[in-house]
Amino acid sequence: MTNPSLLILAGDGIGPEVMAEVKKIIGWHGDKRGINFDVSEDLVGGSAYDAHGTPLHDDTMAKAQEVDAVLLGAVGGPKYDDLDFSVKPERGLLRLRKEMDLYANLRPAQCFDALADFSSLKKDVVAGLDIMIVRELTSGIYFGEPRGIFEEGNERVGINTQRYTESEIERVARSAFELARRRGNKVCSMEKANVMESGILWREVVQRVHDTEYPDVELSHMYADAGAMQLCRWPKQFDVIVTDNLFGDLLSDAAAMLTGSLGMLPSASLGAPMANGRPKALYEPVHGSAPDIAGQGKANPIACILSFAMALRYSFDMGDEADRLEKAVEQVLADGKRTADLLGEDGVQPVTTSEMGDAIVEAL
Amino acid sequence: MTNPSLLILAGDGIGPEVMAEVKKIIGWHGDKRGINFDVSEDLVGGSAYDAHGTPLHDDTMAKAQEVDAVLLGAVGGPKYDDLDFSVKPERGLLRLRKEMDLYANLRPAQCFDALADFSSLKKDVVAGLDIMIVRELTSGIYFGEPRGIFEEGNERVGINTQRYTESEIERVARSAFELARRRGNKVCSMEKANVMESGILWREVVQRVHDTEYPDVELSHMYADAGAMQLCRWPKQFDVIVTDNLFGDLLSDAAAMLTGSLGMLPSASLGAPMANGRPKALYEPVHGSAPDIAGQGKANPIACILSFAMALRYSFDMGDEADRLEKAVEQVLADGKRTADLLGEDGVQPVTTSEMGDAIVEAL
Ligand SMILES: CC(C)[C@H](C(=O)O)[C@@H](O)C(=O)O
Ligand SMILES: CC(C)[C@H](C(=O)O)[C@@H](O)C(=O)O
Repeated sequence: MTNPSLLILAGDGIGPEVMAEVKKIIGWHGDKRGINFDVSEDLVGGSAYDAHGTPLHDDTMAKAQEVDAVLLGAVGGPKYDDLDFSVKPERGLLRLRKEMDLYANLRPAQCFDALADFSSLKKDVVAGLDIMIVRELTSGIYFGEPRGIFEEGNERVGINTQRYTESEIERVARSAFELARRRGNKVCSMEKANVMESGILWREVVQRVHDTEYPDVELSHMYADAGAMQLCRWPKQFDVIVTDNLFGDLLSDAAAMLTGSLGMLPSASLGAPMANGRPKALYEPVHGSAPDIAGQGKANPIACILSFAMALRYSFDMGDEADRLEKAVEQVLADGKRTADLLGEDGVQPVTTSEMGDAIVEAL
Repeated sequence: MTNPSLLILAGDGIGPEVMAEVKKIIGWHGDKRGINFDVSEDLVGGSAYDAHGTPLHDDTMAKAQEVDAVLLGAVGGPKYDDLDFSVKPERGLLRLRKEMDLYANLRPAQCFDALADFSSLKKDVVAGLDIMIVRELTSGIYFGEPRGIFEEGNERVGINTQRYTESEIERVARSAFELARRRGNKVCSMEKANVMESGILWREVVQRVHDTEYPDVELSHMYADAGAMQLCRWPKQFDVIVTDNLFGDLLSDAAAMLTGSLGMLPSASLGAPMANGRPKALYEPVHGSAPDIAGQGKANPIACILSFAMALRYSFDMGDEADRLEKAVEQVLADGKRTADLLGEDGVQPVTTSEMGDAIVEAL
């Protein structure tokens, strides 16, 4: 049997630093658990642009299609702000999502007990929070045509198109219902069916998938603006939220921030099963490339490490290994270890990115 | 000189109840201050549909075009959930916005001292908060064509179009900069220029309006997802936020909820100046029609009353009268008067909608 394969795309900013810690975890699995991965590495985002003049080289794209899972760090930075839209770092990430057809973006918004105080929300509102946002990732206004800036009369007009087919909605709805069955068995679907026809179709299809395939799961619908409100008011009312690409972008970021655990939150982007039964998959932290702290040993590697835990669970069916890794992270936090982003006012000395990685390996 | 004219469209759910209290305030201005309005009333939303089979009768639309300001309560309710998209209560409101060309929607997100405890956010995060969200209201994905649900192959596809012209962006940017000059002199513009071409144009035009007309105002740009995060983390970093119709819908609702003062928040929707120099204008509370508590005397009339205060300020140039009314509201809150939505756990007896209105008249 061949080893499962991983492509590491560390990317820009703090990406390489946090990914270095993930490599320690991967190494530990080989040394101590006999779980070996074939790891290759490549460039994405600004660093790929610097090397090749494109944020994702075709060869890298081809490799991503072949491996069992991609681990991505982060892309972007002020250095690339003035690049043309078509070669911006983000385009590399969007191309991966689109060409790998990673339609289901799983974004857990979880509040770590040890960190509840970091939330801007009151402790009782967030303590113990554990919701899963399933964001459609390969369609909607991110990819719809026509798009562009056009001349019209004597001015320009900026155009983007929101576009959802029934089958695109069906498949991401299924992902949400499947997840719900393994969690709290509740799905809330969010759109603006009161304003957008694409939202009407969304609501109708999610309801149909529910009624015909998942009648046992509790389903509700909410307008996305009300959803944003309710996330801020009492997020614990939710279990799984399913929503489109653009609403998912805003709502999952708001939810992530609410937990107070932003530097801690992983994500998984999953597509259809490959020949070997594993889904196409890319794992990345929710946080960005944080260019302001890059290279200073201040970054928190936990989100990236927990993204690897999601890979163990969703790509390699190693739920026990994932649990172990997640427990190790909790352990280290409970022991009071904190990277600089997690410091309150109590005078604790921060650990470096690398020390945090070492501590987690230790706890394993 | 003729009296300024007002069209009251109380609408559905709690709309009529909260509007009844506004009428008391209008009456007080006539009796005690010699400020008389010519008030007419009509139907909008579900109640208009019940009477005429349309959520906004053409005659009502014509009246709205003629008056100096429209006061709207709220629209919608479960009774109308199964109506066709084209006659849903919301369509009445959207038609008013579009045909009156009310392009600048002003949504203050303000935390009332007496109510800071109601926020799900920590008190220091929200106490004293006072930001103004300027949401573009007549274009973008709410109104862009093509739109609809179409057959494609053997399935259906839901389509909406985001569309912004340079002049549409310019005029709402000007509204934001003008407001900023009278407040904290800071504007933050939000879009997704990293993903959407309409966002690229948005950013470019806002920057140009700034550089050529308002170089004295501090301008920053933020991606809308980061904006959602920052609103949840530390909203006091903002003064004026300007953003498009859809982002504004979500962001302003999130911001409103964060203040803990949802039942308290007014809004103004302003268009171009009419022949008499007054802008086309519609004022409405941010909260909805709350069908679950309609008719029980539980609704909080303050958001609707403060919407009238905004009318005094923005339509009738009566800033002093607006200040007086706002102070009366604060006074009543400071005196401990609370409608049912504002009750904590300290056993205060709630006042009814009508008692709250009376108390505010009293305080005036
Ligand atoms: C970097 C950017 C293109 C991306 C998005 O908008 O999807 C990011 O915000 C995210 O949520 O993963
Ligand atoms: C009622 C609805 C059409 C409306 C909107 O989406 O604009 C509401 O949510 C608002 O924000 O005023």
